[in-house]
Amino acid sequence: MQLSAETIAGYLNGTIEGDASTLVSAPARIEQGKPGTLCFLANPKYEKYLYTTKASIILLNRDFELKSKITPVIIRVDNAYEGIASVLTLFESAKSENKKGREYPSTVSWKSKRGKNCYIGSYAYISKGVRLGNNVKIYPHVYLGDNVEIGDNTILFSGVKVYKGCIIGANCIVHSNSVIGADGFGFAPQANGEYKKIPQTGNVVIEDNVEIGACTTIDRSTMGSTIIRYGVKMDNLIQIAHNVEIGKNTVIAAQTGIAGSSKVGENCVFAGQAGVIGHLNVGNRVTLASKSGVSKDVPDDKAMLGFPAMEASKYKRSFAIFRNLPELRNDVYDLMKKVAEIEKKNDE
Amino acid sequence: MQLSAETIAGYLNGTIEGDASTLVSAPARIEQGKPGTLCFLANPKYEKYLYTTKASIILLNRDFELKSKITPVIIRVDNAYEGIASVLTLFESAKSENKKGREYPSTVSWKSKRGKNCYIGSYAYISKGVRLGNNVKIYPHVYLGDNVEIGDNTILFSGVKVYKGCIIGANCIVHSNSVIGADGFGFAPQANGEYKKIPQTGNVVIEDNVEIGACTTIDRSTMGSTIIRYGVKMDNLIQIAHNVEIGKNTVIAAQTGIAGSSKVGENCVFAGQAGVIGHLNVGNRVTLASKSGVSKDVPDDKAMLGFPAMEASKYKRSFAIFRNLPELRNDVYDLMKKVAEIEKKNDE
Amino acid sequence: MQLSAETIAGYLNGTIEGDASTLVSAPARIEQGKPGTLCFLANPKYEKYLYTTKASIILLNRDFELKSKITPVIIRVDNAYEGIASVLTLFESAKSENKKGREYPSTVSWKSKRGKNCYIGSYAYISKGVRLGNNVKIYPHVYLGDNVEIGDNTILFSGVKVYKGCIIGANCIVHSNSVIGADGFGFAPQANGEYKKIPQTGNVVIEDNVEIGACTTIDRSTMGSTIIRYGVKMDNLIQIAHNVEIGKNTVIAAQTGIAGSSKVGENCVFAGQAGVIGHLNVGNRVTLASKSGVSKDVPDDKAMLGFPAMEASKYKRSFAIFRNLPELRNDVYDLMKKVAEIEKKNDE
Repeated sequence: MQLSAETIAGYLNGTIEGDASTLVSAPARIEQGKPGTLCFLANPKYEKYLYTTKASIILLNRDFELKSKITPVIIRVDNAYEGIASVLTLFESAKSENKKGREYPSTVSWKSKRGKNCYIGSYAYISKGVRLGNNVKIYPHVYLGDNVEIGDNTILFSGVKVYKGCIIGANCIVHSNSVIGADGFGFAPQANGEYKKIPQTGNVVIEDNVEIGACTTIDRSTMGSTIIRYGVKMDNLIQIAHNVEIGKNTVIAAQTGIAGSSKVGENCVFAGQAGVIGHLNVGNRVTLASKSGVSKDVPDDKAMLGFPAMEASKYKRSFAIFRNLPELRNDVYDLMKKVAEIEKKNDE
Repeated sequence: MQLSAETIAGYLNGTIEGDASTLVSAPARIEQGKPGTLCFLANPKYEKYLYTTKASIILLNRDFELKSKITPVIIRVDNAYEGIASVLTLFESAKSENKKGREYPSTVSWKSKRGKNCYIGSYAYISKGVRLGNNVKIYPHVYLGDNVEIGDNTILFSGVKVYKGCIIGANCIVHSNSVIGADGFGFAPQANGEYKKIPQTGNVVIEDNVEIGACTTIDRSTMGSTIIRYGVKMDNLIQIAHNVEIGKNTVIAAQTGIAGSSKVGENCVFAGQAGVIGHLNVGNRVTLASKSGVSKDVPDDKAMLGFPAMEASKYKRSFAIFRNLPELRNDVYDLMKKVAEIEKKNDE
Repeated sequence: MQLSAETIAGYLNGTIEGDASTLVSAPARIEQGKPGTLCFLANPKYEKYLYTTKASIILLNRDFELKSKITPVIIRVDNAYEGIASVLTLFESAKSENKKGREYPSTVSWKSKRGKNCYIGSYAYISKGVRLGNNVKIYPHVYLGDNVEIGDNTILFSGVKVYKGCIIGANCIVHSNSVIGADGFGFAPQANGEYKKIPQTGNVVIEDNVEIGACTTIDRSTMGSTIIRYGVKMDNLIQIAHNVEIGKNTVIAAQTGIAGSSKVGENCVFAGQAGVIGHLNVGNRVTLASKSGVSKDVPDDKAMLGFPAMEASKYKRSFAIFRNLPELRNDVYDLMKKVAEIEKKNDE
C-alpha cells in the first residue's frame, strides 16, 4: 500500500510543507528512515537524526522549530506521537488478518455460547458455561475455564489461560501465555510450621478496553473480585495479586508487581520493575519510577521514587549526597580533627 | 449452600455471640460484607469496617476487644485467619469440580503409567516413562517429558510444562504456564568471547504439599537435583535457578529470584521482588523484605532488608538518615564555616 | 555409559594423576560426589569439599595447588569449568532424544515449508508462510504465526509462542512458554485521559546461537526490528521491550528487563533482576550487578551497581558509609555541640 503526503495530511488534519504528491509505503524509525518511508519526531532525544534522515515524509509537531533545512516532506500535526499512531493503524489495518470461524481440533462445550464472527483456533479449550461476545478471537492453546465471559471484539492470543468464573470485557487484548485467575497467594500459618491453603473463592474482572502483555499474571480474589478497570494498559511479566483493584486508564510497565489487597487509582503511570506492597491505597495520577517500591499510602498526584519510595524530588536530593558520601564522611573526620585541636589549644 | 452460625461455630470449635440460627450463603471481605455473608477480622488495618459492615456473621479472635456494639452475629475462635480458611474450604468443597477421566484428543504414551481416578485434559501430552499417582489432575495443554513422576492428588493446571526426568510429589498444585525443569543457565566463556553451553544433566525434585504459582520457573540442576522441600509455597513469576535448594515450609512471594546453587533454609518468608545471589547459604526462619537482595550468607532467624541486604533494624536506621541527607550535608557545611571562623579568630 | 579416566583425559587433552583405568558413570557436584562419579573444582568457594569428596575422578585446573593428598584420580586441564562442560556434553549426547518426524494431531499449513529431519510435536500450530530449516525441533503446544522463520537445528520447547513475521536463526534454543514478538508497549495518551494503541508493525529478529530461557518475553518493534544478536544467552523471565537491540555474546540473567529502544553492546554481563531504562546506549563489555538499574548511557567496559546505577567501586564506597550513617549523624551532632561550646567560650 502506498500513501501520499496529501492523503496522510488529510487523515491527520495536518499541514504539508513540500511536495504533497510524495508517496510512502511503510513507517520507519527516524534513525533508520529510508526513501519511501514515513518517520516522526516526538522525543527531542532523536532530533539529531532529523537533519540526516533519508525518509520521504516526516511528522512534526506544529510548534517544532527546525534548526536548518531538512530533506523530507514535512507534515505538521498537533501531536506527532498521536499522529504516528494513526498512520501505523492505517498501514496495519491494510494487512490485518481478520481471522474467523472455528479450526479443528478444538474443544467447545455445547454448554457454552458465542456471538457472531468469532475465531476459535485449534487446540483451544472452551469449558461449559463460557460466554463469548461477537468478533471474539480465541487463538490456539487458549484455555477458558467454566463460566468465563469474554466481551465483544476481545482477542486472546495463543496460550492465554483464564480460570473459571473470570470476566473479561469488550475490546480487550491479552497477549500470549498470560494467566488470568490463578489462585491468590493465601496461606494460614499452622502451629507446626506448615501452611494451610486458604481457598480463593473469588474471580478476576477485567473491564473494557484493557490491554495485557505476555506472561502477566492476575490472581483471583479470596472473596469478591480482583478488578482491572476500564482502559488499563499492562505490559509483560506483571504480577497483580488477589483482591487488588487497578483504577481506570492506569498504565503499568513490565515486571511491576502489586501485592495483595492494594488499590491503585486512576491515570497512574508505573514504570518497569516497580512495586506496591499489600493493603495500600495509591491515589490518582501517581507516577512511580522504575524499580521503586511503595510501602505507604500515596496521596493523589505524587511522583514517587526509590525503595522505600519517597517523593521523587526529595529522593533525588538525598541520592545526590549519597553519591558523594565518602566526601561528606571525610569532611566530618576533618572537622573532628580540627575541633579536637581547637579544644586542645583552648585547654592549654 | 447455606450454613448457620451454629454449624460454623461447631466446625471451628468457636463460641457464638448472638442468634445461633443466623444463615450465610457466601464469604465476603469485611469492607464488602452484605446481609447473608460471613466476614472475618484478622488484620487490625480493617477494624474500621467492623462497626459498619452489613455482614450477617463475623469471625473474631477470642481476645479481640470490641470498642462498641456491632450488628453481625459474632463467632469467636482462637485464630480468625485460620478460621476463615476453614470456612472457605467448606464453601469451596461444595462447588468443587472433581474432574476425572480422559478427554480427547490427548497424548498418553503407552509406556506411561497412571493410578486411579486421574483426569487427563484435552491436548495434554504425556511422554513415555511418565508415572502418575492416584487422583492426579492434568489440565489441558500440560506437557510432561520422558520419565516425569507426579504424586497422588497433585494438580497441574493448564499450560504447565515439566521437562524430562523431573519429580513432583503428592498433594502439590502447580498453576498455569509454570515451567519445571528447563535448562539451568550455565555457559562457559570461550577465548573468542562466545559462550559454550554446559549441559544441564540433572532434574528438579519437588516434595509433597508444595504449591507453585503461575508463570514460575524452576530450572533443572547441572548435576544432581534442584530441590523444593515439603510444604514450600511459591507465588507467581518466581525464578529458581539450577542447583538451588529451598527448605521445608518456606514461603516465597511473587517475582522473587534465587540464583544458582544457593540454599535457603526452612520456614523462611521472602516478600515480593526479593532476591538471593548465587552460591549462598540462607538460614532457617529468615525473613527478607520486598525488593531486598541478599548478597552474603545469612544466619538463622535474621530479618533482612535492602540491597545489599542488611539486618532490617539497622537498614531502617540508616535509611531514616538517608531521607534527610541534605540536612546532614548542610549541618556539616555550617560546621565547616564555623570552625574556619574559630580557627581564623584563634590565629589572630 | 561408563568412561575411563584415560578416555576423558584424552578427550579433554588433560593429564592424569592416578589410575588411568578408573571408571565413572555420571557427573556430580563436588559436595555430592560418590564413588563412580566425576566432579570438578572451579569456584574456590567449594575447595573445602575437595579433601572429603568420594568422587572417583576430579577435574582440576593445571595450576591448582593441592593443600594435601586427595582420594579421587585427578585430571588436570587448562580450564576445569570448560572441561566439565565438555564431559557433560559427552554424557548427555549418549542419552539424547533426537526426536524426528511429525506427531498427530498437529497443524501445519500447506503454505509452510520445512527442511529435513524436523520434529513437529502434537498440538503444534504452524501457520502459513512459515519456513523451518533442517533438524528443527518444534515441541508440543508451540505456536508459530504467519511467515515466521526458524533456522537449522533450532529447538523450540513446549509452549513457546512466536508471533507473525518473527525470525529466529540457526542453532538457537528457546525454552518453554517464552513469547517472541508480542506487541510492544506503546500507547499515545489522549486528551480525555485514555490511551490509544500504537500498532506495533515491526518484528523480532534473533540471530544464530542464541539461547532464551523459560517465560521470557521479547516484544516486536513498533517499526523495524527488535534485534538479539549472535550468541546472546538469556535466562528466564526476562523482558526485552520493543525496538531494543542486544549485542553479540551478551549474557543476561533472570528477571532482568531492558526498556524500549535501548541498545546494549557486545559481551556485556547483566546479573539477575537488573534493568535498563528506555532510549539508552549501553556500551560493550559492561557488567551490571544484580538488582541494579541503569538510568544513563554507559560507556564501554564499565562495571555498574545500584539504582540509579553508579560505577560499582564508587557505589560500594558510598554504601559502606550508608551502613553506618547513624554513626556519621552522631559524629555531626557531637561536633555541633562541641563547636557551640567553643563559640560560647570564645564569646565569654
